[in-house]
Amino acid sequence: MTHKVLLLPGDGIGPEIAAQAARLLQACQEAGLDIEVEEGLVGGSAYDVHGEPLPAETLEKAKAASAILLGAVGGPKWDKLEDLSKRPEKGLLGLRKNLGLFGNLRPAMLYPQLASASSLKPELVAGLDIMIVRELTGGIYFGQPRGIEERNGERVGFNTYIYSESEIERIGRVAFEMAQKRGKKLCSVDKANVLEVTILWREVMERLAPEYPDVELSHMYVDNAAMQLVRAPKQFDVVVTGNMFGDILSDAAAMLTGSIGMLPSASLNESGQGMYEPCHGSAPDIAGQNIANPLAMMLSVAMMLRYSLNETAMAERIEAAVGSVLDDGLRTADIASEGTRRVSTVEMGDAVLAAF
Amino acid sequence: MTHKVLLLPGDGIGPEIAAQAARLLQACQEAGLDIEVEEGLVGGSAYDVHGEPLPAETLEKAKAASAILLGAVGGPKWDKLEDLSKRPEKGLLGLRKNLGLFGNLRPAMLYPQLASASSLKPELVAGLDIMIVRELTGGIYFGQPRGIEERNGERVGFNTYIYSESEIERIGRVAFEMAQKRGKKLCSVDKANVLEVTILWREVMERLAPEYPDVELSHMYVDNAAMQLVRAPKQFDVVVTGNMFGDILSDAAAMLTGSIGMLPSASLNESGQGMYEPCHGSAPDIAGQNIANPLAMMLSVAMMLRYSLNETAMAERIEAAVGSVLDDGLRTADIASEGTRRVSTVEMGDAVLAAF
Ligand SMILES: CC(C)[C@H](C(=O)O)[C@@H](O)C(=O)O
Ligand SMILES: CC(C)[C@H](C(=O)O)[C@@H](O)C(=O)O
Repeated sequence: MTHKVLLLPGDGIGPEIAAQAARLLQACQEAGLDIEVEEGLVGGSAYDVHGEPLPAETLEKAKAASAILLGAVGGPKWDKLEDLSKRPEKGLLGLRKNLGLFGNLRPAMLYPQLASASSLKPELVAGLDIMIVRELTGGIYFGQPRGIEERNGERVGFNTYIYSESEIERIGRVAFEMAQKRGKKLCSVDKANVLEVTILWREVMERLAPEYPDVELSHMYVDNAAMQLVRAPKQFDVVVTGNMFGDILSDAAAMLTGSIGMLPSASLNESGQGMYEPCHGSAPDIAGQNIANPLAMMLSVAMMLRYSLNETAMAERIEAAVGSVLDDGLRTADIASEGTRRVSTVEMGDAVLAAF
Repeated sequence: MTHKVLLLPGDGIGPEIAAQAARLLQACQEAGLDIEVEEGLVGGSAYDVHGEPLPAETLEKAKAASAILLGAVGGPKWDKLEDLSKRPEKGLLGLRKNLGLFGNLRPAMLYPQLASASSLKPELVAGLDIMIVRELTGGIYFGQPRGIEERNGERVGFNTYIYSESEIERIGRVAFEMAQKRGKKLCSVDKANVLEVTILWREVMERLAPEYPDVELSHMYVDNAAMQLVRAPKQFDVVVTGNMFGDILSDAAAMLTGSIGMLPSASLNESGQGMYEPCHGSAPDIAGQNIANPLAMMLSVAMMLRYSLNETAMAERIEAAVGSVLDDGLRTADIASEGTRRVSTVEMGDAVLAAF
């Protein structure tokens, strides 16, 4: 069966790194992978053409695809759009919500070749390998009521942080299963000393625990988790948390590695359909200069092969190619260090393809 | 006029470090400071005696005081209390709310003597001096509606993240004024690409900016702020944000110094009345062992003298005493390093008093 892959370059450096992913997909096809690649518009670039960050056509294509590869969305050009529903980010959030991509996997792992890029002392991050499981279609990102309105003679802004038991259970199971496949430690992050919604969160995690007796479940308040990530990140194996806390902690964790330009992510729904994207954003400040790091995007292809297309061998080939390119000392600007060779976006793509 | 100071030791290591603060207050009295010190119960220790984390008597004393010194609240002993309103944390939150202590100042600065304690590379944190201004009586901590209830056959938990223009303006002014007294850079942290409440936040900050033409205002999304704190913390001078984001970011920032046991904080209301407490928590795991670091608590006394009692000279004497003790190489366990002398809580208190 031919797998349909939808490539959504998006904004900023998105198109540049997506171009390298496209070349890699073609190389996979040539190596025997049965896929069909389509492209589509999302984010600011979709707004510019269609007046919508998620055009109906893109959503249709996304629904029909086995997997989606997304570059990045957003940029200052669209930050002033009065109507929040037209902003680039709404394209991304719309895809997540419409496809039910509730399970966001954000690995933060340190490539040994890039250990010196971390802002932390080497001994604290050597061998770092954390998997953050973030709930992606609920919580305060989507809670109702929300808005800005007049009350008692002044405006108030409000959002609702809400989770149901079934939403918590669903992401909890993803996290427990992930822990089973990894180091068997799961840390659930909440703010149960203040927020009722996270009291329910903690309760559901506790209820699930006996079904996964091989996994050691712990709980941590979000403020402490932010501290512990800075202090001693290697204490974590799998972390599970809601949409907002997950947004913050996964970025902090990714940055611990010093090379966020290397980290892919997956967003999965109940049927295993997934959207894959780099952890870094659209980096408008360096867009169009052929200097962005395409590796997170190329590793997103590998993650897609593993999680949605069940093509583990091909995924490993990509990961090995990236490893050998790093071994050879090739570096884009974001991961450059003394004694390595500085390459452009396209040159990095060339090198990975050559090693593939 | 005699200043009334209320000392609330609280839970965990609270009483041990509060005892050192009490000795320091007495030394200040002997040095001519006109204060009257009372003690009170709050948190779990108040619950154990009165069945309430914030007994009416404590609240009365707090209202009558010029300033409050708080140790820390909370511990596993009370974590299982079904009724959230009885938990130790509610004592702290009740004090903040009832006294209108909306302006939380959380400095994250690196003591040069403790530079090696940071988990970050020395060059990234040398000279670090950030002031986080956190809104403390609004936002999702206090927003209504909140609770856990049955909807569509299952339970949901929910909280409300809400700010009015006047609440935002009030904390904004504190932050702009703080920036004027410091490096003249203010970074407002929000999630305006997703949350309406923070769109209003950003708008109000923008509206205030022209009144403080000497301050350079910037905006940053909270996920990026968490990353930037890890990557390059010295880019920040003053940071202003809401209650929840402030909780997370101020702890991460404090931990960057590697010596959270050194950091005091202030929570102020409109009339300059303030509550002062260490940034660290109640550390129940080391309570009662005479090993906790009393310096953040003793520096909280200095912060109180400066912000609420207008006794700058006396504040500086305390800070100098702490500095000289560090110069002498005395260290509690949390900040110990090679070549320094390990001391207990009481010994550290002795040393500061001797140097005062
Ligand atoms: C772009 C933004 C809406 C998004 C989010 O907050 O989820 C991004 O920060 C991410 O983490 O994928
Ligand atoms: C104890 C807790 C309620 C409190 C908070 O979340 O505000 C603490 O973490 C703090 O930052 O002072």
